[in-house]
Amino acid sequence: MKATAKANTNIALIKYWGKRDEELFLPMNSSLSITLDSFYTITNVEFSRNLNKDIFMLNNHQASESESNKVFRFLDKIRKLAGTHLHAVVTSENKVPTAAGFASSASGFAALAAAAAKALNLELDERELSILARQGSGSACRSIYGGYVEWQRGERADGKDSYAKQLLSERDWNISILSCLVASGQKQVSSREGMKRTALTSPFYSGWLNTVEKDLERAKEAIRLRDFESLGKIVEANALKMHATMLGAEPPILYWQSGTMEVMHHIQNLRLSGISAYFTIDAGPNVKVLCLPEDEQRVYESLLTLPSVQNVIICHPGAGVSYL
Amino acid sequence: MKATAKANTNIALIKYWGKRDEELFLPMNSSLSITLDSFYTITNVEFSRNLNKDIFMLNNHQASESESNKVFRFLDKIRKLAGTHLHAVVTSENKVPTAAGFASSASGFAALAAAAAKALNLELDERELSILARQGSGSACRSIYGGYVEWQRGERADGKDSYAKQLLSERDWNISILSCLVASGQKQVSSREGMKRTALTSPFYSGWLNTVEKDLERAKEAIRLRDFESLGKIVEANALKMHATMLGAEPPILYWQSGTMEVMHHIQNLRLSGISAYFTIDAGPNVKVLCLPEDEQRVYESLLTLPSVQNVIICHPGAGVSYL
Repeated sequence: MKATAKANTNIALIKYWGKRDEELFLPMNSSLSITLDSFYTITNVEFSRNLNKDIFMLNNHQASESESNKVFRFLDKIRKLAGTHLHAVVTSENKVPTAAGFASSASGFAALAAAAAKALNLELDERELSILARQGSGSACRSIYGGYVEWQRGERADGKDSYAKQLLSERDWNISILSCLVASGQKQVSSREGMKRTALTSPFYSGWLNTVEKDLERAKEAIRLRDFESLGKIVEANALKMHATMLGAEPPILYWQSGTMEVMHHIQNLRLSGISAYFTIDAGPNVKVLCLPEDEQRVYESLLTLPSVQNVIICHPGAGVSYL
Repeated sequence: MKATAKANTNIALIKYWGKRDEELFLPMNSSLSITLDSFYTITNVEFSRNLNKDIFMLNNHQASESESNKVFRFLDKIRKLAGTHLHAVVTSENKVPTAAGFASSASGFAALAAAAAKALNLELDERELSILARQGSGSACRSIYGGYVEWQRGERADGKDSYAKQLLSERDWNISILSCLVASGQKQVSSREGMKRTALTSPFYSGWLNTVEKDLERAKEAIRLRDFESLGKIVEANALKMHATMLGAEPPILYWQSGTMEVMHHIQNLRLSGISAYFTIDAGPNVKVLCLPEDEQRVYESLLTLPSVQNVIICHPGAGVSYL
């Protein structure tokens, strides 16, 4: 009745932006990510007949009501699947520091899905686990796998064909991902709200959907060929396009800060000086830089010279879900 | 055979972005601008039988070959209209400092069109002059008029219905336009190239065209009602949309710098503190801020406190073409 799982977070190279089903977390477009080695969540779930409600402990403290409710609603989905009404204690250790500029929902719901399913002996394969994790947070479905991962949007209304699969394992191609923190503090618009507003109001959203699947195919081909330059170009352009769709929303959404722009121009200048580095930016102000491992140290040091960069953490492709 | 004209530059509130005819400078969409009082070009044109080539003197120096050729090609169009082969000396005094972050082509070609047409006794009315100026630089057709000006895209292939007209004179509604210089130096991508690449490659360009005419109608209504808040919201959103279309171009075009972003967030924060101020940004990094005259001094002083703002110049609606 209990189990512990560990999941790493992931960074999208081709972005997930917009849902076709809010309840099932079904995306409008397929996406592609790298699971990272440095940031993870370890979660223990223990179901018990002795509980009359769920409890969620996060980093040794009782989690906020809004965080707890997300977890409890997700447990409801798992209970329904397992045909049980038992409550659980969920204990999470979250090693995705805010200072890294990553959301913790991907690793969080991947670890929770894996631990809860194992605790209830659901015997899900990775695909089924990916489908389950997706219903906690869309991007969590990618963190089930290590390395380079594609999330196929799927076509079905029930979401049974919307899951992730591995393209390359973390051992097959090592690249460096440098996470640059340029601004901390709560975002004014959540990703969830941002993608919803964009899909509903931006005149650019159809242009996004019309080109993102082609971006994905080109990115997959670049990964297959280990062609870093091609991958970098596609990834950077895809991130710019995602942010462009938000600028057209009503009212407009602007996640970038002056430091975001400083890092973007710095990376483009590094390329002019012959270093192959590219950026990507999620729904927030922080920038993630991709480069080859041989350039990692130079890129790292150059980023630290920028006035607006508060912190840089180096990551590499990491493993999928494991059980402790 | 000689004449002198003065024209002010203008700032677009609803942007001109993309041509349907490169040679005739016919736009894909209608636009709306304010002619400004502070930045102008004074141009003298003298045709003579004693010249065997054109000469272009800019601010007391012979202009560069590329600048001169634009002027000479424009003179060719005027000569064709007048049925003459005479060459001319063009002497321009350009009071559109680079430090103001404005392009000088609007005031430059408006003054040149007016002076050259008068020197050749073409007796054009303002509409015909607007059509002529447009063929030197699109936005020049708006600088023929003072105050609030609309440039109707027109439908005809010959451009005869693509000209500007005045919505309100400069005396009818005074607002403040603060020009903030955040970065100097040559742009990496010219407006001409930027709009061309966007129209050809950006998946967002159709979304731009689908909404810009509605923006224009709403802006005209706000001007008619002297509704500054409504106008500001539309203007700011329209500028963001124009820049968004470029982020989708292949390769992407990013005119913003970190200082651009700093001013944008500053203005949005000013609004949170109750000051009604809005920004617009042309194809470059500098920001123009709109506010009401009663807030002008406070906005001006607050902009000067920003580390990345090098210079702020206050403008107001100004007059159309005049003859000296």
